[in-house]
Amino acid sequence: MSDQSQNKTHPNKSRRSFLSGGVAVAGGVAATALGARAAVAAAPDPLITEIQEWNQVLGDGVDAAPYGVPSEFEADVVRRDVPWLTADPISSINFTPIHQLDGIITPNGLCFERHHGGVAQIDPADHRLMINGLVDNPLVFTMQDLMRFPRENHVYFLECAANSGMEWRGSQLNGCQFTHGMVHNVMYTGIPLKLLLQEAGLKSNAAWLLPEGADASGMTRSVPLDKALDDCLVAFKMNGEALRPEQGYPIRLVVPGWEGNMWIKWLRRIEVGDQPWHHREETSKYTDLLANGKARRFTWAMDVKSVITSPSPQMPITHGRGHTVLTGLAWSGHGRIKRVDVSLDGGRNWQTARIDGPSLSKSLHRFYHEFNWDGSEMYLQSRAIDEFGNVQPTKNELRAARGDNSIYHNNGIQTWQVRTDGETENVEIS
Amino acid sequence: MSDQSQNKTHPNKSRRSFLSGGVAVAGGVAATALGARAAVAAAPDPLITEIQEWNQVLGDGVDAAPYGVPSEFEADVVRRDVPWLTADPISSINFTPIHQLDGIITPNGLCFERHHGGVAQIDPADHRLMINGLVDNPLVFTMQDLMRFPRENHVYFLECAANSGMEWRGSQLNGCQFTHGMVHNVMYTGIPLKLLLQEAGLKSNAAWLLPEGADASGMTRSVPLDKALDDCLVAFKMNGEALRPEQGYPIRLVVPGWEGNMWIKWLRRIEVGDQPWHHREETSKYTDLLANGKARRFTWAMDVKSVITSPSPQMPITHGRGHTVLTGLAWSGHGRIKRVDVSLDGGRNWQTARIDGPSLSKSLHRFYHEFNWDGSEMYLQSRAIDEFGNVQPTKNELRAARGDNSIYHNNGIQTWQVRTDGETENVEIS
Repeated sequence: MSDQSQNKTHPNKSRRSFLSGGVAVAGGVAATALGARAAVAAAPDPLITEIQEWNQVLGDGVDAAPYGVPSEFEADVVRRDVPWLTADPISSINFTPIHQLDGIITPNGLCFERHHGGVAQIDPADHRLMINGLVDNPLVFTMQDLMRFPRENHVYFLECAANSGMEWRGSQLNGCQFTHGMVHNVMYTGIPLKLLLQEAGLKSNAAWLLPEGADASGMTRSVPLDKALDDCLVAFKMNGEALRPEQGYPIRLVVPGWEGNMWIKWLRRIEVGDQPWHHREETSKYTDLLANGKARRFTWAMDVKSVITSPSPQMPITHGRGHTVLTGLAWSGHGRIKRVDVSLDGGRNWQTARIDGPSLSKSLHRFYHEFNWDGSEMYLQSRAIDEFGNVQPTKNELRAARGDNSIYHNNGIQTWQVRTDGETENVEIS
Repeated sequence: MSDQSQNKTHPNKSRRSFLSGGVAVAGGVAATALGARAAVAAAPDPLITEIQEWNQVLGDGVDAAPYGVPSEFEADVVRRDVPWLTADPISSINFTPIHQLDGIITPNGLCFERHHGGVAQIDPADHRLMINGLVDNPLVFTMQDLMRFPRENHVYFLECAANSGMEWRGSQLNGCQFTHGMVHNVMYTGIPLKLLLQEAGLKSNAAWLLPEGADASGMTRSVPLDKALDDCLVAFKMNGEALRPEQGYPIRLVVPGWEGNMWIKWLRRIEVGDQPWHHREETSKYTDLLANGKARRFTWAMDVKSVITSPSPQMPITHGRGHTVLTGLAWSGHGRIKRVDVSLDGGRNWQTARIDGPSLSKSLHRFYHEFNWDGSEMYLQSRAIDEFGNVQPTKNELRAARGDNSIYHNNGIQTWQVRTDGETENVEIS
């Protein structure tokens, strides 16, 4: 739409006076981007001078949509599944369209889904949460009982352990929605799990929990007690409203920073024991097969990771050379992100990206890098570093440590090739 | 559902050991709430021992809902309009169901609507933003042009100046959705307006802006330049995804902390001038008529305010006496909330509530007060104090200062009467 010949830098004095007046971003970055002249000088624009339909026609009233929906022009901003990935859609995954989102909050309707027996549709009036096993008083809570306990609010990312799993053997899926879209980030309202366990009273040998889902798959995972007492929640709201059915309505377990499979949805029971159960989902699945053929026992925390969401294969550069906004997401299951580096040349040179918006522990972070694209080929990479100094590795570093038998826990650096025409592809460079 | 006879306090030792292990909330509060024994000891519960449908039936697959929707059991969590309030739904309002939400994020589908010519349905490919008037270079931006400017992310509340307006003359609407529901709180992604103005270059006598909407009402408001250069955004995302049509898709002005009417939706033009325009929406409407019949010129910032969202008339206490969670929202157009006080006896005695979740400038804050209800009548009030020491006034203090001719800018303390049966009403006490 814009005219490339006008995308030149036109520094001017009045602009500088603004910068000295307190631009929030780093001066150098802003000065570059501000020189974009992306805007067209107001020569007569037919869309301004002509009367547009929406300026002349009355729209829907306030009674039209009690629960609102997106614009019809956003119909392609949806979760997508890849039918050939799994045998059946009721035990499958779909992917958050992270390439089309900005900021750090994922809207509830776009949070990726992973279920093993389809989406349970539970009537909260008939739902119960039982705590049994090594407790003084086995308890059964109604939803109303739970609403009488103190609540907390936290923004946490949830990442499936298999996110980016196809990338172990090289680039296969062309788009960050598919390579990195098994992640979402919402504000949860929930009851600290420790308060419910305390209500039941733990026996002295209590050391592990087995949360269990009420869906047809009856999902279970062993969770160490220390984690439960640290920061786990029994959540009932996401982004202010009730959990969505596909996210465990009416209640789910929140296990901050740890792999999504442990965040048991449709939570119906928590058994307290003295050792892990080694059920199916923590043995034959969700373990990391190493180069020697042995499986690593329990990999819970999701390591420091990042991805550039635009430009990316589904978000090519369509405006031609000149001022370009690169953006992406970074996260760590250990805490906050401290820094994100960006490379345009496949990891030879790195620049520090600008992290913007709230920086919260175990939450997605949004980063930007504004630059002047000269129209030449690029190899885009991002590398995140968390507050504990953990650095996102290259895929080859991961393979050197673990072989290439793995599916889960791939936090390697991703590469997008941007061609001279702006088209972008998932590539691997050694 | 729960048995009131079991809602007694049963302090025990194992519970104390948890508290010393680091409960995040204030010890006293937690100890009280933890004594709830809201849970029923695990005598056989038919809903646990019987097989439930959702544990036996496979649910929908991941291909069923590309854009997800709430549970059918949440069908009453919707925006509601009050038909008799306005002559026509295309120039009217509806209300956020704040009584049913928690945390601080409002889901996009539940953000209240206010429009004057219905919801414009705009094709972003045909939308333009013009900047003209006292600028060096009048400019017209396409959406693609705008996407080349640096972006920022901020969570801000938006409150209609008329929120709680009916309360000036006493309690009339029975429910906080209707008395206080013209407010929402989302994370915006947008371009600092100063960057766009800088691109156009302001003339030395520039002092005011007139943003204009592209909808059929052609909404305009005069905005002082200082505010525009301080923190205004041209926003294109809310909670990560594109703005909703009823919130100004594809772009709206964000005027943090100031009355919602100034946040021009469907933004098509910004004229730069040297004085305010005194258009209809800033003279005959959205001004405060004082006791002497004169109107106060320009009241922009929304003052410090709070409301208890539960218990409230739409959220009575249904669990009987014993441990009860009181929760609500507080906000200030000037900055952060520093403290919220809660009274159970109509303002005679006050206790400091627990603020939980992110405390962000010009954003909603969530507060809680956990207490042991003895079953007697209560008069619930909340009083917010912001970081600048502004204290939420009583309604009578407001009336003493401004008379009772006003509609707009009512930030007075709200009272809910809780009767002995838990039913709750909007009342006024002197």
